[in-house]
Amino acid sequence: MIKFNCDYLEGACPEIMDRLLKTNFEQTFGYSEDEHCDTARSYIKAACDAPDADVHFLVGGTQTNTTVIASMLRPYQGVLSAATGHINVHETGAIEATGHKVLSLECRDTTGKIYPDQIEEYYLAHVGDDSFEHMVQPAMVYISNPTENGGLYSKAELEAISAVCKKYSLPLFLDGARLGYGLCAPGNDLFLPDYARLCDVFYIGGTKCGALFGEAVVITNDTIKKDFRYMIKRQGGMLAKGRLLGIQFETLFEDGLYERVCSHAARLAIKIKNALIEKGYELLTDSVTNQQFPIFPNEKLAELKEDFSFSFWCKVGEDKSAVRICTSWATSEENVDLLISKL
Amino acid sequence: MIKFNCDYLEGACPEIMDRLLKTNFEQTFGYSEDEHCDTARSYIKAACDAPDADVHFLVGGTQTNTTVIASMLRPYQGVLSAATGHINVHETGAIEATGHKVLSLECRDTTGKIYPDQIEEYYLAHVGDDSFEHMVQPAMVYISNPTENGGLYSKAELEAISAVCKKYSLPLFLDGARLGYGLCAPGNDLFLPDYARLCDVFYIGGTKCGALFGEAVVITNDTIKKDFRYMIKRQGGMLAKGRLLGIQFETLFEDGLYERVCSHAARLAIKIKNALIEKGYELLTDSVTNQQFPIFPNEKLAELKEDFSFSFWCKVGEDKSAVRICTSWATSEENVDLLISKL
Amino acid sequence: MIKFNCDYLEGACPEIMDRLLKTNFEQTFGYSEDEHCDTARSYIKAACDAPDADVHFLVGGTQTNTTVIASMLRPYQGVLSAATGHINVHETGAIEATGHKVLSLECRDTTGKIYPDQIEEYYLAHVGDDSFEHMVQPAMVYISNPTENGGLYSKAELEAISAVCKKYSLPLFLDGARLGYGLCAPGNDLFLPDYARLCDVFYIGGTKCGALFGEAVVITNDTIKKDFRYMIKRQGGMLAKGRLLGIQFETLFEDGLYERVCSHAARLAIKIKNALIEKGYELLTDSVTNQQFPIFPNEKLAELKEDFSFSFWCKVGEDKSAVRICTSWATSEENVDLLISKL
Amino acid sequence: MIKFNCDYLEGACPEIMDRLLKTNFEQTFGYSEDEHCDTARSYIKAACDAPDADVHFLVGGTQTNTTVIASMLRPYQGVLSAATGHINVHETGAIEATGHKVLSLECRDTTGKIYPDQIEEYYLAHVGDDSFEHMVQPAMVYISNPTENGGLYSKAELEAISAVCKKYSLPLFLDGARLGYGLCAPGNDLFLPDYARLCDVFYIGGTKCGALFGEAVVITNDTIKKDFRYMIKRQGGMLAKGRLLGIQFETLFEDGLYERVCSHAARLAIKIKNALIEKGYELLTDSVTNQQFPIFPNEKLAELKEDFSFSFWCKVGEDKSAVRICTSWATSEENVDLLISKL
Repeated sequence: MIKFNCDYLEGACPEIMDRLLKTNFEQTFGYSEDEHCDTARSYIKAACDAPDADVHFLVGGTQTNTTVIASMLRPYQGVLSAATGHINVHETGAIEATGHKVLSLECRDTTGKIYPDQIEEYYLAHVGDDSFEHMVQPAMVYISNPTENGGLYSKAELEAISAVCKKYSLPLFLDGARLGYGLCAPGNDLFLPDYARLCDVFYIGGTKCGALFGEAVVITNDTIKKDFRYMIKRQGGMLAKGRLLGIQFETLFEDGLYERVCSHAARLAIKIKNALIEKGYELLTDSVTNQQFPIFPNEKLAELKEDFSFSFWCKVGEDKSAVRICTSWATSEENVDLLISKL
Repeated sequence: MIKFNCDYLEGACPEIMDRLLKTNFEQTFGYSEDEHCDTARSYIKAACDAPDADVHFLVGGTQTNTTVIASMLRPYQGVLSAATGHINVHETGAIEATGHKVLSLECRDTTGKIYPDQIEEYYLAHVGDDSFEHMVQPAMVYISNPTENGGLYSKAELEAISAVCKKYSLPLFLDGARLGYGLCAPGNDLFLPDYARLCDVFYIGGTKCGALFGEAVVITNDTIKKDFRYMIKRQGGMLAKGRLLGIQFETLFEDGLYERVCSHAARLAIKIKNALIEKGYELLTDSVTNQQFPIFPNEKLAELKEDFSFSFWCKVGEDKSAVRICTSWATSEENVDLLISKL
Repeated sequence: MIKFNCDYLEGACPEIMDRLLKTNFEQTFGYSEDEHCDTARSYIKAACDAPDADVHFLVGGTQTNTTVIASMLRPYQGVLSAATGHINVHETGAIEATGHKVLSLECRDTTGKIYPDQIEEYYLAHVGDDSFEHMVQPAMVYISNPTENGGLYSKAELEAISAVCKKYSLPLFLDGARLGYGLCAPGNDLFLPDYARLCDVFYIGGTKCGALFGEAVVITNDTIKKDFRYMIKRQGGMLAKGRLLGIQFETLFEDGLYERVCSHAARLAIKIKNALIEKGYELLTDSVTNQQFPIFPNEKLAELKEDFSFSFWCKVGEDKSAVRICTSWATSEENVDLLISKL
Repeated sequence: MIKFNCDYLEGACPEIMDRLLKTNFEQTFGYSEDEHCDTARSYIKAACDAPDADVHFLVGGTQTNTTVIASMLRPYQGVLSAATGHINVHETGAIEATGHKVLSLECRDTTGKIYPDQIEEYYLAHVGDDSFEHMVQPAMVYISNPTENGGLYSKAELEAISAVCKKYSLPLFLDGARLGYGLCAPGNDLFLPDYARLCDVFYIGGTKCGALFGEAVVITNDTIKKDFRYMIKRQGGMLAKGRLLGIQFETLFEDGLYERVCSHAARLAIKIKNALIEKGYELLTDSVTNQQFPIFPNEKLAELKEDFSFSFWCKVGEDKSAVRICTSWATSEENVDLLISKL
């Protein structure tokens, strides 16, 4: 059974495993205060062209989302998110556990994106009158890129969101769990320095992009920087052997490995997409990233499932189903070709 | 300026003020452990035909909603509510402050009601598969009667909701901030014993129904009863001079005062409604309760606002606006007639 | 049975009841945005000689403590308090419910006071090293005056605490649930303008000092002022008929009623204290406020309890017990004389 | 510089690194639902002689403590802990972030242990009277073994604690961050089946005992088992590539590796302890575990710090300091001998 369910099916790229092995008996202090973390931080700041940024490493996405959001909001404030956003749907209430409401914006299309006018409209509908004291105050914006649905913001789109956020003093937080696959998507024009320039805080996903685990949070907004390590600890995200995170990001950002492994996945995803189109399958959404959402007749799906495993996404009428096919840094071209041959 | 904005514009009905005055120098122990509270509890249990119920008194609605909800849910669970429900819109995140997500169900109509199949569908879409561990578990149902929008559930409707809740072991909590006005609405067929029989917990609103303040929580579900007073204290809802609540509910439930004061409001609301219809005004929703939602041309509204004050509800196109007109136990027939004469 | 258990055994002073009655049919907007609240706010600001302060009204102490504390702390910060402080012992975890640890300082004496060097020592032991990221950051100081144990800070003492707080940027919050009895205690040299000058925020207790209920929060620190009403609502402390609070504090602060009713209690407490000393009873602590803590032989206590009721405080050896005797605005001289005659 | 500061200075034992490498390209589903986790769970249940236990894997200690505690308590309840317990001192308020108070018990000695009569006394002082509704309800007991201070409970001691917990229906949670070093300490008579029999839930620490990271939670109490995975996710402890945890614990428990690596550390700690005693140094506490707390004259300490690094523990008078010396699975005998030679 060849699995295409998600982008965290395997361990880590071999370069990372090598480095972990090589450094295994080094003695370092804990909690990301070691030299590997320092080096990784300097690499990332350089890659982001953001010398004054703060960079922190956390183990996983839920921790990162809760830590960032809880550090940015006062108790009565909430975070704007696409209705389909990860924090609104797939965190088992971890955001609410920090006392904050996720203020959901309905998605207009299948991309999972939100648009500046939605932010503006929501914001303006909640200020300027005492009656709003009875409602959660919108106070930050959460987006992910690529989105949960494989959508990808363009530079112009992110600039427009950033502008409306600045206009209303709403800090912008970008969840980059799959950032690497966005960086390498065909037609992408958003790069690390853009993220650092346009967001108040964002994270560079490791777990899904070549690492065993780990997310690198980049903070450019000074207010959010303050005491962020206390927040990490309080939210359960402070790894004892922090150097494990440092070593991984050091390896990924030392000489472009992050983009290399993600490019591989992006190329294979497009190869699959092209084959799907060529063979006449519909796509639920037009994704340029490592997640593809073909719609298969149920019969065809049953046939494919003899050899392959996908994530079920949704029913499309009675006779068809949309599934998610993910490629990753670890996907082999051989398996992709096998899949294409069975389409 | 005559105000019709809401049903909490005045103090309390004179019978309550008299009783507060008469008892002012009695010495009683605090925290609702006095004889007035005991008497009020017994009156309410009798009125609900629920001798085994527990009855607690809280000062206001937000406290009541947070205390009940937080006492019923485990940390990863959420509460189903109409999207327009009070807890989803008008609590400044007080529910989320207790760590719980409000799971909103879109309203199908303007009544603010939800329907059993919506509950069932939501519930079934979140059980039966490990993948739901990544989502908030739906674990109780919140409704209000009358609703935020003046809608009123029939007995058949509440029975159907109660049945689906029992089927899936979802406790049912009914917010009765305006319960009195529901009891006295024309055509209403839901009475206190029905609420006690069909809900796991509900509250009888005092603040908007003749009292200075205060809500009486009636708990029939044994699990929720346990240690509820600890919850009240923890949520900041334990009034030092608890007898103030006891005295008020004692007065309201001793000889039918609660229904008497609410009937007055209901009759005046219908008088206004009939006048509105007669004079050709549209209504946003067909309410039989003390809240009426006429749509006025903006010009007419400006004219009325010289003498009367309403709550703005929403724009209806460019030229019209819906407002809320509330009657209450304190509304005078004279003022209602004056309003009608100006329509 | 004559009760001396606490200072919230009766309703409210007659002047307040009269005013509530007189205003009962006025129509006012809710949520403390009415004229009575405005007037009460202006009286209190004048009494505090603090024209730029913000004044808010809440129903009770737990709400007030949680709302103030939660509005002042970032998530990883805690509040310093005497180990015997109300927030550390008698709030059923309401402070922790807002996500914050109470950092307790052991009391050196029976007064329930803490001292500036304790604050300084605790603070200095938690800064200056990365290892403190693993501990709750001390970030504000809570005291009450009079204390839970009847102790009273002098002006010099409060000035010294305020100075150490300012030195380390620790906002100072003073719980004044019994402030009125402190203002009127013999030898007291701390008055409202001192509180406003020395604290970042404090509250003037109404519930125990002549009102039916209600506490007036006075905020002088601009940071704490921002969006405080959102916090009140979120914490369940926003009273619908806010004018009830305004009317009560308007009455108490219009012409010195607050001090008058408290002076009465203070005088009677000292009368009891002097009688106790004269008759040779020990006192647990040397209180000058409306709470007195005599130590009675168990036999004598049993005898007194035939006619009087007190709060049990603690055992003193095998044969004696300390109790709390409270006077209040409502205590009659007749009952005090009766008690003295039985000592 | 040779570091003895803590037991998480290096990576993982080579057997674990080998296994991670060997399995790196296996495709497994996420979130600990893979075969490695299943195997590890079965090994651990066998080692604990607890076939009906549930076993869960989390990344680190803070997550584990918050997840377990938050899953066991109702909102108004708190957890009893030694004043020096990790959850009371070194979690930056992570427990309070879940809404619960840590109820601290003063330690009677330098071991960091608590005793059954302390639990009983605290419990009995908080039940049986309505006045306790104003206080946090003690509802579970937290201990760690070995303790934060290197103390080790005997089987008789744990049985006595367990008995008092059962008597009062207080679930017992044992933090085993260093459990392995306890299992291998000279004189230890507490083994895994004892923990499973005597605790409602406990965890077997991996991070400090040979793994890269990871803690294995063993739940024997059925109430706590329910929906625990929802809790893990909500608290940010659900690792995407859960198999990383499974592989590590599979390796540690397949053929006794866990005890082997811990025995090594235990033997070296005792070697250091004996040398310290022989050379006349005092010990802060008589530890039989991998943490030793010698008291050095400041001059001697300065001399040692030229070659070695320790954790500063506390001052002992003006001229001496206590430090912590930790051994671990990774400590080399050579470095220990070097240290001994410099004592």
